[in-house]
Amino acid sequence: MILYDFPGAPNPRRVLIFAAEKGIDLQRVTVDLGKREQRSDAMLAKNPSGKIPVLELDDGRCIGESVAICRYLEHLVPEPNLFGAPGFEAAEVEMHHRHIELELFSQVGTAWVNGPIVASMGLIEPIEAARARAHDLVLAYYRRLDKALATRPYMAGKRFTIADITALCCIDFAAKLVNLKPAAELTSLWQWHARVSERPSVVAYPA
Amino acid sequence: MILYDFPGAPNPRRVLIFAAEKGIDLQRVTVDLGKREQRSDAMLAKNPSGKIPVLELDDGRCIGESVAICRYLEHLVPEPNLFGAPGFEAAEVEMHHRHIELELFSQVGTAWVNGPIVASMGLIEPIEAARARAHDLVLAYYRRLDKALATRPYMAGKRFTIADITALCCIDFAAKLVNLKPAAELTSLWQWHARVSERPSVVAYPA
Repeated sequence: MILYDFPGAPNPRRVLIFAAEKGIDLQRVTVDLGKREQRSDAMLAKNPSGKIPVLELDDGRCIGESVAICRYLEHLVPEPNLFGAPGFEAAEVEMHHRHIELELFSQVGTAWVNGPIVASMGLIEPIEAARARAHDLVLAYYRRLDKALATRPYMAGKRFTIADITALCCIDFAAKLVNLKPAAELTSLWQWHARVSERPSVVAYPA
Repeated sequence: MILYDFPGAPNPRRVLIFAAEKGIDLQRVTVDLGKREQRSDAMLAKNPSGKIPVLELDDGRCIGESVAICRYLEHLVPEPNLFGAPGFEAAEVEMHHRHIELELFSQVGTAWVNGPIVASMGLIEPIEAARARAHDLVLAYYRRLDKALATRPYMAGKRFTIADITALCCIDFAAKLVNLKPAAELTSLWQWHARVSERPSVVAYPA
């Protein structure tokens, strides 16, 4: 299987870490986001949303969206599961995962889209008020995560799941490229970060 | 099971329609969003994100997030499935569903949050440029959906899935409360809307 990828992009990194946890090898093909290759006719045929990652199966069928790709990989190699056991645990993992995606990652995205790097590419007119609001919401969310992680070792409970992968890729991207790093005093959040960062799958695919 | 709900809110409607498709009865308890009851201590104990819907199981455990709740209901009554058969179909449904959530629903949310109704509640300082950009992105997405629906009868392919429920609840909310209605000439989108709206589950839970 081929993974259309771009070094440093947070969403392909989610899939790479997930696949490494499963022991699944993916052939990586770079799509140059700087050249907008993700919106070429060839890539739009694979994913009409014009985004990466995209997983191309051996028969040519394609799947877009990191979480849809990860769910497919979980189907191929069900255990150890990273979406939770079917039933209540899977629902709980999905809830925590969605909180991170919808309340943290989406705000990091807003801060990124309206920030100086994207502005310098000339792709969009930045809205400073939107960037500033997103910035504050991200920092508030880090404080919420720190409180939650004082009561449980991983994002969705007692064990490592896809919610940890998404949170890690989001936080690392925000720290590196959006100038949004968790404050040093958020020790539970930083302890979680260290715990997750030493996993072989994460060591293999650093930010 | 209890569903914490608010009449007219689009996300609880997703769960109600989903449950009706499955023939699952839910006891509805209204959480008054106008009075911010979703952020009361009692409700925050059920869902720390302070949002509805929340599903409370008979043993008192709670699940937040519409999609996590729906996935739990799918686990209780697997067929007819609305998330796709495990494997490629489930990944494809999830991809289409996420496109609708992340590229359409999120923009409707931005237009709503920065629009006049929320401003009149005094909860947030509206950002007009953010509202205007979201407005344009929603209308562009409606055109994309119209093109896609000229080639397939439902959002994710040949049959009705959770992607249709989410799209319907989003579009109806946007039309009613955000002044964002698909243009009349988007006939494939409107034909899909009519097709979905005549289902008994949707007739039972109108916008």
